[in-house]
Amino acid sequence: MSAKVRAAVQTGPRAIEVREFDRPTVGPDEGLLRIEACGICGSDVEQYKGALRREGMFPVIPGHEPLGIVEEVGERAAARWGVEPGDRVALEILIPCRSCELCLTGRYMSCRNRGGSYGYTPVSRAPSLWGGLAEYVYLHPNAILHKVRKDLPREVAVMFNPLGAGVRWACDLGATKLGDTVLVLGPGQRGIAAVIAAKAVGASTVIVTGLARDQRKLDLAREFGADHTINVDEQDTVERVTEITDGAMADVVLELTPMAAKPVVDAIEAVAHGGRVVLAGLKGGRPMEIVTDRIINKAVTIVGAYGVDARSYSEAIRIIESERFPLAKLHTHTYELADTARAIETLAGEVPGEEAVHVAVCPGA
Amino acid sequence: MSAKVRAAVQTGPRAIEVREFDRPTVGPDEGLLRIEACGICGSDVEQYKGALRREGMFPVIPGHEPLGIVEEVGERAAARWGVEPGDRVALEILIPCRSCELCLTGRYMSCRNRGGSYGYTPVSRAPSLWGGLAEYVYLHPNAILHKVRKDLPREVAVMFNPLGAGVRWACDLGATKLGDTVLVLGPGQRGIAAVIAAKAVGASTVIVTGLARDQRKLDLAREFGADHTINVDEQDTVERVTEITDGAMADVVLELTPMAAKPVVDAIEAVAHGGRVVLAGLKGGRPMEIVTDRIINKAVTIVGAYGVDARSYSEAIRIIESERFPLAKLHTHTYELADTARAIETLAGEVPGEEAVHVAVCPGA
Amino acid sequence: MSAKVRAAVQTGPRAIEVREFDRPTVGPDEGLLRIEACGICGSDVEQYKGALRREGMFPVIPGHEPLGIVEEVGERAAARWGVEPGDRVALEILIPCRSCELCLTGRYMSCRNRGGSYGYTPVSRAPSLWGGLAEYVYLHPNAILHKVRKDLPREVAVMFNPLGAGVRWACDLGATKLGDTVLVLGPGQRGIAAVIAAKAVGASTVIVTGLARDQRKLDLAREFGADHTINVDEQDTVERVTEITDGAMADVVLELTPMAAKPVVDAIEAVAHGGRVVLAGLKGGRPMEIVTDRIINKAVTIVGAYGVDARSYSEAIRIIESERFPLAKLHTHTYELADTARAIETLAGEVPGEEAVHVAVCPGA
Amino acid sequence: MSAKVRAAVQTGPRAIEVREFDRPTVGPDEGLLRIEACGICGSDVEQYKGALRREGMFPVIPGHEPLGIVEEVGERAAARWGVEPGDRVALEILIPCRSCELCLTGRYMSCRNRGGSYGYTPVSRAPSLWGGLAEYVYLHPNAILHKVRKDLPREVAVMFNPLGAGVRWACDLGATKLGDTVLVLGPGQRGIAAVIAAKAVGASTVIVTGLARDQRKLDLAREFGADHTINVDEQDTVERVTEITDGAMADVVLELTPMAAKPVVDAIEAVAHGGRVVLAGLKGGRPMEIVTDRIINKAVTIVGAYGVDARSYSEAIRIIESERFPLAKLHTHTYELADTARAIETLAGEVPGEEAVHVAVCPGA
Repeated sequence: MSAKVRAAVQTGPRAIEVREFDRPTVGPDEGLLRIEACGICGSDVEQYKGALRREGMFPVIPGHEPLGIVEEVGERAAARWGVEPGDRVALEILIPCRSCELCLTGRYMSCRNRGGSYGYTPVSRAPSLWGGLAEYVYLHPNAILHKVRKDLPREVAVMFNPLGAGVRWACDLGATKLGDTVLVLGPGQRGIAAVIAAKAVGASTVIVTGLARDQRKLDLAREFGADHTINVDEQDTVERVTEITDGAMADVVLELTPMAAKPVVDAIEAVAHGGRVVLAGLKGGRPMEIVTDRIINKAVTIVGAYGVDARSYSEAIRIIESERFPLAKLHTHTYELADTARAIETLAGEVPGEEAVHVAVCPGA
Repeated sequence: MSAKVRAAVQTGPRAIEVREFDRPTVGPDEGLLRIEACGICGSDVEQYKGALRREGMFPVIPGHEPLGIVEEVGERAAARWGVEPGDRVALEILIPCRSCELCLTGRYMSCRNRGGSYGYTPVSRAPSLWGGLAEYVYLHPNAILHKVRKDLPREVAVMFNPLGAGVRWACDLGATKLGDTVLVLGPGQRGIAAVIAAKAVGASTVIVTGLARDQRKLDLAREFGADHTINVDEQDTVERVTEITDGAMADVVLELTPMAAKPVVDAIEAVAHGGRVVLAGLKGGRPMEIVTDRIINKAVTIVGAYGVDARSYSEAIRIIESERFPLAKLHTHTYELADTARAIETLAGEVPGEEAVHVAVCPGA
Repeated sequence: MSAKVRAAVQTGPRAIEVREFDRPTVGPDEGLLRIEACGICGSDVEQYKGALRREGMFPVIPGHEPLGIVEEVGERAAARWGVEPGDRVALEILIPCRSCELCLTGRYMSCRNRGGSYGYTPVSRAPSLWGGLAEYVYLHPNAILHKVRKDLPREVAVMFNPLGAGVRWACDLGATKLGDTVLVLGPGQRGIAAVIAAKAVGASTVIVTGLARDQRKLDLAREFGADHTINVDEQDTVERVTEITDGAMADVVLELTPMAAKPVVDAIEAVAHGGRVVLAGLKGGRPMEIVTDRIINKAVTIVGAYGVDARSYSEAIRIIESERFPLAKLHTHTYELADTARAIETLAGEVPGEEAVHVAVCPGA
Repeated sequence: MSAKVRAAVQTGPRAIEVREFDRPTVGPDEGLLRIEACGICGSDVEQYKGALRREGMFPVIPGHEPLGIVEEVGERAAARWGVEPGDRVALEILIPCRSCELCLTGRYMSCRNRGGSYGYTPVSRAPSLWGGLAEYVYLHPNAILHKVRKDLPREVAVMFNPLGAGVRWACDLGATKLGDTVLVLGPGQRGIAAVIAAKAVGASTVIVTGLARDQRKLDLAREFGADHTINVDEQDTVERVTEITDGAMADVVLELTPMAAKPVVDAIEAVAHGGRVVLAGLKGGRPMEIVTDRIINKAVTIVGAYGVDARSYSEAIRIIESERFPLAKLHTHTYELADTARAIETLAGEVPGEEAVHVAVCPGA
């Protein structure tokens, strides 16, 4: 067992290099996770490009979707988490205080006394290993772990993260009910995860939008249960939803597109009177032009999708473990730690010839 | 009993005249209501100015807040409504179909097969008497009536309408809970009604904003329970809410200002993480510039306030009948039917020297 | 078109005969439905036996699960219901007033000013045709109708009623969520309908109990998605649920057994801490011995299942129309009008050699 | 500062003595609370009498309603709890794991990996000081603390516990809405707390029942807002509620009586169709005879009141700090530590001439 840990370190926009860190010693409340796979997310792309810049954020080990094997765990931590060395676990991104009223009432994602978050805490803070794009990640006493069955492929098991978002958005925040029509704007891995979640709770009609270049993703969405797809380069979303639903429009709309403005307007137009719109696609802080009178006159509810909670992750893992969906089809690319930059660029669509849906880095590969 | 009914008829923008109509005969499912008072609403002002123009809307009898005495009622209607001649009732604005799934599931405000709505149905449709600014209003078989105690002053009893909106926005849509901080943007009659409703369900801190010229309304808001008021011509809403709440911000924000854009932005900034914003202030169809990332990152829920339901009206009437609030203080102006235009102009603030909060037309006065 | 209508009339306990009634003329707010099929329900059995005896209830035309073709419909009724002659519709049992606050807030099942209920209104009330076990049923102005596709077999289409109950109990009242474990006590047509509904909204594990003699029904339950069945003549329900769930117990328990006392106790023991128990099995007014301390210490919520609402019926029809379940397998017996008594006795298990799940009377057969 | 800590130790039924324990040293995650006051609860009475007997429960320091001053606090604990020495805090009874899915989703009261609970953990477990009836109580790393203003009388500040229960039962579990009629069965300190909470969220009519000997408590209930009281030794609860509500019955019923069977039946009869019954009165494990058909036919929801959550405690403290209720009137008896047995007997009504509502032991008195 080496005394050094290799990790991908981002030092600035588009600058990632592999560095070595001391392997931390593990106290009674802590642990160390050997990374099997870490999923790459759209916000990793933004961070890579430098879009989410904050003072003092670099150097940092990115990666907030880690799946791994418990390598070491302190005595009290083992009791608290209910794990032992050798267990496979999924790690949540946030490290809440677990003590404030928000934490005590199930809203820990909003905790303001956080002990950091994985993938966003600089290496300057001991013990440096705060990111999933590394051989090991440090398990803080307040880290949140979920056990995962060990016999599933790591590339599939690591999908707990996008699938957790799909469950949170479609089921919790979208409150999809039996028989609902659900419109998903954006066909990425989280869009397809939302299709899976919406269908799992009884949506009767699921519609997914994408660009012309997203054809493969739209096809995948259909394979995972979408009833209709809309190529927005050729068809108008609101018109098509009107046709498909015979004017009843969508009970639930999930807006998942990064940076784009039109889908926000489409969401409000395509939702049914009294329906719900879940906003999850960040727009780089830009203002959107919204006719709020439409929100009023259509009695619409709009929900900001901030964070994924433990119950959603745990349902996502249950879906994965049920093996009733061919999730392996979503996985398109696996990279070694040294190829982290390329992994991110692949998801970003910057690598010619590569069409990515789900990308993972496997440090032990 | 005259065979003719006098009514204020709007024939176009800023054109109102008194006309006479035949008194309708009442079938077994119908009724006729003798108007005691009809409240004037902000949307009457917009209609008067011609802002809500639609093809074929004129001539029309305005007035959608009628309080009256049942003059005649058909046998089946009496059984259905549980009323008899001589009863005082409040009349809801909407005439739903009562048969579609929306009606059957308690969302009749969204019914798409409506039989019309009071104050907005042209006189060309028989029997013409579709507005509250008249001696009598026709009670359609599907009209919704609420009994009101007869010993209360008509100017107070007629407040069922703005108070119903306050209950709907603060309690139902805003979901104000015990101990919440509630921010009300706009100090009109509905703003003050929202203060009453928020306090009635246990809000610990209620803050109301207004312009410099709204000083009297802000003072009234305090009298009805507001803990703080903000003069937005002198103070920044978000800064003041930050100070008052020590950074915790408002659990619930009600945006009630007509036409103004800044309060929409203020609402999203002043609401707490995980809080609720209720939008009720129409903006003439203009787009608002909203940074949707703030909605996402603050986990905000935004609710469009469309319509007031029967339960809210009935709670409003219960509040009025309890006599625990000095509601008469809200009433500032009573007019005769012939002075309808002036009543509307008074509420609009167009009559020099008159500062209006609640204005009513009493046709029998 | 005959001027007479044949109907099965119950004149007292275990006494049913076919009588002829005058065919009613249809006013502008009314209609007449030609019955294609009327499902037989457990409460028809109780009524047949005389268990639900009330003063003046006989003679009565039973049958509260009617499916039929609109034969005649008044002009206003056609507009209100959105139907025309020739349409196939499902008819709800209750005739609410549509005017009281309960009706206006979506709780019409609890309306206290009812215009009667199908299958329970005596023939002495004009126009006599208040039951589904007849060639025609009278459509009261306040009747609630749901359109159903005409190309489905009548024996399947008529399942809107038990399936509506399954949706109401499993989804609405039971609030089954993605990944929940649902325990259904009682494997009748409604128990199996609850299995379908629970699976449709994502229950991960569904367990159904039955007696040894219910083996066919338990097998059917498995075919419709149940993961486990318990023969309570051989196994203890609570013990088995403990084993199956590894001690986590059931998130939702539906108690559907008629007359039995032990399942009520089992329900409270087999539900998880913080779980929900839906009570739907009537016990003939007998007291049950319940340790309420268990309800407190387990933080259980118990919900009395009274009535099925329009949304549940409409989702049930959507499930039927989707044709994704082999519902025809549930149907075991079809009878002519003249054999109504035998139809009821078959469902009651009183006909040797006949094992019934879903039984229907088809007057035109 | 003494190295010894005095505490009231229960060694068996009706056997309490003062013993001395070593003062614990405080690690970085722990703390020590100097008790100002500890409220006496009905379950302290049961424990005293030996009714809640469990193997190995004695000797134990009782007391699960402690209010105190932070005497010592470890560095990490101070950061986590946001407190420093000298702060006044209320201590919750439960010590949850803060790591399981129940804890993470806001249901920590149901946590199955508890680190113990105050007042019920035997002295054999280090560091012994697990009860509020002592000079000091040990603050476990997972203890839940709420800051309380220091200028309020300790006898009033300590009411956070019964008041927290009132908020939980009337507002959360009972879901009391504006205008509701609330029936409180049992006029003890928690019954009166429920009156305060129900009125605070807008109940229009609150009715409280009690025995003839509870006259003082019933009078107090009226002083705190009850509109009606029922002496059940002279009047029938269901009859009186029928009269008071004109047959509409109670929207919410809180059953708080210890050991009695009739109030459970009364609760189900006195609740309105579609209403809610909250069960909080433990019955020593005895079965109650309940006609479950009534629960079904009245569409009643019954909720077992297990535990009080952080939000309810924090609202209770907010009510106390608002000083808008004359809470001091509820407090009837203060005792020294040495008189703990007498304090419990006083609340039990075993001390002739003493009529207790709220009783507290103040170790430093």
